[in-house]
Amino acid sequence: MEFHHNGYTTVDPRIEPAAGVGLDRPDELPEQVDVLIVGSGPAGIITAAQLAQFPGVTTRIVERRAGRLEVGQADGIQARSVETFQAFGFAEQIIQEAYQLVDTEFWTPDPEDPRNIHRSSTTPDTLIGISEFPQLIVNQTRVADYLAEFAERSPARGRVDYGYEFEGLEVGEGEYPVAVTLRRTTGADEGATRVVRAKYVVGADGARSRVRAAIGGRLAGDQAMHAWGVMDALAVTDFPDTRRKSIIQSGDGGNILVIPREGNYLVRWYVDLGETGENDRGAVRQTSVEQIAARANAILHPYTLDVKDVSWWSVYEVAHRLTDRFDDADAHEGGRRAPRVFLAGDACHTHSAKAGQGMNVSLQDGWNLAWKLGYVLEGRSPESLLETYSEERRVIAQNLIDFDKEWSTLMAKKPEEFASPRELEDFYIATAEFPAGFMTQYESSTLTGDGAHQGLATGFPVGKRFKSAEAVRVADGVLAHLGHHHRADGRYRIYAFADAGAEALDRWAEWMLSSEHSPVRRFTPTGADLDSRFDVKVVYQEGYHDIELGRVPELFMPRRGPFQLINYEKTWAAIPGNDIFDERGVSRDGAVVVVRPDQYVATVLPLSATDELAAFFEPIFTASE
Amino acid sequence: MEFHHNGYTTVDPRIEPAAGVGLDRPDELPEQVDVLIVGSGPAGIITAAQLAQFPGVTTRIVERRAGRLEVGQADGIQARSVETFQAFGFAEQIIQEAYQLVDTEFWTPDPEDPRNIHRSSTTPDTLIGISEFPQLIVNQTRVADYLAEFAERSPARGRVDYGYEFEGLEVGEGEYPVAVTLRRTTGADEGATRVVRAKYVVGADGARSRVRAAIGGRLAGDQAMHAWGVMDALAVTDFPDTRRKSIIQSGDGGNILVIPREGNYLVRWYVDLGETGENDRGAVRQTSVEQIAARANAILHPYTLDVKDVSWWSVYEVAHRLTDRFDDADAHEGGRRAPRVFLAGDACHTHSAKAGQGMNVSLQDGWNLAWKLGYVLEGRSPESLLETYSEERRVIAQNLIDFDKEWSTLMAKKPEEFASPRELEDFYIATAEFPAGFMTQYESSTLTGDGAHQGLATGFPVGKRFKSAEAVRVADGVLAHLGHHHRADGRYRIYAFADAGAEALDRWAEWMLSSEHSPVRRFTPTGADLDSRFDVKVVYQEGYHDIELGRVPELFMPRRGPFQLINYEKTWAAIPGNDIFDERGVSRDGAVVVVRPDQYVATVLPLSATDELAAFFEPIFTASE
Repeated sequence: MEFHHNGYTTVDPRIEPAAGVGLDRPDELPEQVDVLIVGSGPAGIITAAQLAQFPGVTTRIVERRAGRLEVGQADGIQARSVETFQAFGFAEQIIQEAYQLVDTEFWTPDPEDPRNIHRSSTTPDTLIGISEFPQLIVNQTRVADYLAEFAERSPARGRVDYGYEFEGLEVGEGEYPVAVTLRRTTGADEGATRVVRAKYVVGADGARSRVRAAIGGRLAGDQAMHAWGVMDALAVTDFPDTRRKSIIQSGDGGNILVIPREGNYLVRWYVDLGETGENDRGAVRQTSVEQIAARANAILHPYTLDVKDVSWWSVYEVAHRLTDRFDDADAHEGGRRAPRVFLAGDACHTHSAKAGQGMNVSLQDGWNLAWKLGYVLEGRSPESLLETYSEERRVIAQNLIDFDKEWSTLMAKKPEEFASPRELEDFYIATAEFPAGFMTQYESSTLTGDGAHQGLATGFPVGKRFKSAEAVRVADGVLAHLGHHHRADGRYRIYAFADAGAEALDRWAEWMLSSEHSPVRRFTPTGADLDSRFDVKVVYQEGYHDIELGRVPELFMPRRGPFQLINYEKTWAAIPGNDIFDERGVSRDGAVVVVRPDQYVATVLPLSATDELAAFFEPIFTASE
Repeated sequence: MEFHHNGYTTVDPRIEPAAGVGLDRPDELPEQVDVLIVGSGPAGIITAAQLAQFPGVTTRIVERRAGRLEVGQADGIQARSVETFQAFGFAEQIIQEAYQLVDTEFWTPDPEDPRNIHRSSTTPDTLIGISEFPQLIVNQTRVADYLAEFAERSPARGRVDYGYEFEGLEVGEGEYPVAVTLRRTTGADEGATRVVRAKYVVGADGARSRVRAAIGGRLAGDQAMHAWGVMDALAVTDFPDTRRKSIIQSGDGGNILVIPREGNYLVRWYVDLGETGENDRGAVRQTSVEQIAARANAILHPYTLDVKDVSWWSVYEVAHRLTDRFDDADAHEGGRRAPRVFLAGDACHTHSAKAGQGMNVSLQDGWNLAWKLGYVLEGRSPESLLETYSEERRVIAQNLIDFDKEWSTLMAKKPEEFASPRELEDFYIATAEFPAGFMTQYESSTLTGDGAHQGLATGFPVGKRFKSAEAVRVADGVLAHLGHHHRADGRYRIYAFADAGAEALDRWAEWMLSSEHSPVRRFTPTGADLDSRFDVKVVYQEGYHDIELGRVPELFMPRRGPFQLINYEKTWAAIPGNDIFDERGVSRDGAVVVVRPDQYVATVLPLSATDELAAFFEPIFTASE
């Protein structure tokens, strides 16, 4: 963590100094805003959190409820999301309080007495080496709390405006072309409506999104004729795996998914309620929580479940639906134009809860969109950058629906329908990278290189998230995950892996610092710190005691703040025995790895390819005045 | 972290439900309190934090200042203190923001040109394996912030009462025998005095302690005739080790100790100002910060230090002083009696800052005292327990003074005075366990066993702090440091390491649960949860998949809260390849390891020694009604 560079500060260093719009942020929702986010669920709040790092942008986030969410439904946290939380500064904190997934237990009918279930196999839930972070289960309210805290501590001082319901919007002309009508849902002026004008609107208002409806979008897809009951329960049971994720198939064709929850006592039980007929519509929804518990007991036989307290429960039929649009670019008479309204999260995709995907995909939707909005609104990038949101996230959403359809169909199968007794488990293992959140790979585009030089850094696949590895900071010998220094501050990261001898590195650094084609020179505003737009780090091959700081190029020792102090955090070395060059397949001739603000690898280039580096950033950034 | 056992809660689980005196805690300082703590430095605030876990005890902590400490002087955090912070729930949080000590660099006159310094050697600062936590440097204000937060989130809702200065006290008779006179230092009633009556008073009011004076105590010791300047500076330097702890001796006999600080920019410089003559008294204190910086530049030659901003600085002469009493047991006419007033922290011991000891020893003073006060005041223990505070901490303070005297003398030596060029470094390495905080070993006493069965668990030395090791929780397969489940909740921990086959374990567990001599039966109040006084855990030798939870004794699966839910956190297994039995030399015949609320090993016994276990607790606890 870096602080004190503007002089000694005494408070929690996580509270950044207010800047820009955060200096005099009005408590009241203003008439005009740059970004209006509708909905404070995972997609909405992460968008607000990231945008709060752009002090030039006025972002407001409205929420229909009168206050903080008290009981949320999502609870599955992929390792990819924990990596994301690390960038937002709260990975360790949420790990402390969350349930941590280690094993998944498979229970099937006992061949000796199929009226009973027995544990048939155990599989590790997390692929070894897929991430340095675990998979977690914790209520989404806590994720929202932490992101809200990050927003509030960020320079723009983001906060949710509670008690405003979205009524409708119209996209017109002018500087603030979107007119949004909001209705007060609480307070003295309950029921009153007002119009807020925005440059951009983000609809993160859930599966029944009214923003989606307002731009003429609709969810398309199908509903499986299969019902589930779900309850978050405090219970006493002799079922031995109540604190392990368990997938249970009973002899009578019933299924249960057991998801232990945070705090050591709470457990979420997904209980199979069976097929629903064509004419059943709605009837299954009348199932009571007592009936769900009774069905659970039947499936668990010979074990029993004595439910003491239920904090939340529901009955639902699985539906897989995808929005036909992620933005309003096509929602205009006269053809496609630059988007002004975006959808994110459940407004785009709804699906079964059981793969634990929803919140995670929503978080990446929001993060993807937020930095792009920040870039365009602060003038760092042309408006066309915003078109990449829909291009990138539509594919991800489709993959999600496809995966979840397959998974939830398998989960609802009867034992006799399986090709082999291990079919469910085999699918689970074979596809584990997907639910962990690491299958996302953006295709070649303006933002993503073509991978022509992928061979120089095989462990950093272009388009996938930067998979962190450890290195040692030369100045103080501290071991750290290089990726953990990628905070959600909106900056691009450029990692220069040095060649042996560092001659090519020195030439590259000199070009970066002084060439008129260098992205650092072209796109860093006059008077701003050298690393304010691009956080450029070096990783040497030598041991850290062999690096002389006096010979490290100035590019990696930039000055910061009013006292122009030297920043020593940019200069790293490989760790003998845990060498990042080996761990990530980086060429001993060096390589340049460019990483986007949302942690996806943008491109890999040789140290000599300065022209290509310049060309890569050309369409993304707008030259600084 | 455990929560939801009383039903689902939605807020940060670190905020415990208020209980007892925390339910209606008055904002105003009451007329009568159980414990009055004077001073909110490290010793005082940790005492308040621990006591806030005793909801039956009214604790108030008064502070002369009008508000929170903004700039503290202590910054060295031993690994032992980080372990302590873990118990108070903020180790990860403070590690995130602190400077982490890895190496110490030794700089000496360059033999080729003694006008220059050169790096002569590097030594790892932290002994490998001494603790799972690093040594840190961070301002004491942050430590105080986190402890204050813990106090406020604890059941008794502890908070500092600012703006009260201690004027004097008198110990009389009655239920609240100590009458303390306080003077308001701020607010409308500034200057007004009032009397608060307390059962016990803790003087944590620093080196010039007025509480100490009030009980007739005094500091005795000596002052070295050697002055140092110290400054916390933001600076630009070409000295390459400005981000590493460095001990510098220059050819002209000057010394510098470089202590990098949190946040990547701030550095503390201890600069040798040389001997002070007998008649110098006071003169050296006139040294300006510019003179300190100039002297630093002279010593650093050929490197330069361009100081940009100084957040704090001081000039001091090293003094080593120890109080002649830690409590008022002897401060009465008519001979020794039970103590009512205690001293803790700098009120007991002052010494050089350079070994980074002060805050750490003060924290352990406070923690040692606090749980004992809680026990006596809640009726868990006889009043005689309080006599062990002075017995235990007086020895530690003397050791501290002795060590620091030796270390600071060495630090001030001229190169030519050393027996060998490596003398300083050798001493540093040889004594590393001391400054890390792990030399403390309480002697055999009421609280500490005689170590007769030490051979059953050689890695848990009786009287030293419980050195944590990893195990796997059977119920969910999560790997964790066993010691990290020892929270600062005031409970004793009893670890039962199972014999192979667990037959002796089962007998021991049966005795613990049902014998009338069992400490759990004797000392747990009627109606309280089984683990409310003793947190009893089992560690099996087998892999966690081989443990059937259905066969684990009830002692290790206690019920909790209004729903009497099963607590699954007590049952652990060794990790193959990182086996706690091997790591800590635990006998394969099993062993019982008893750990005090402040994490020191109280005794080690065989599983068969139930009589000895009963006898051990007999004088410590008072039988429950």
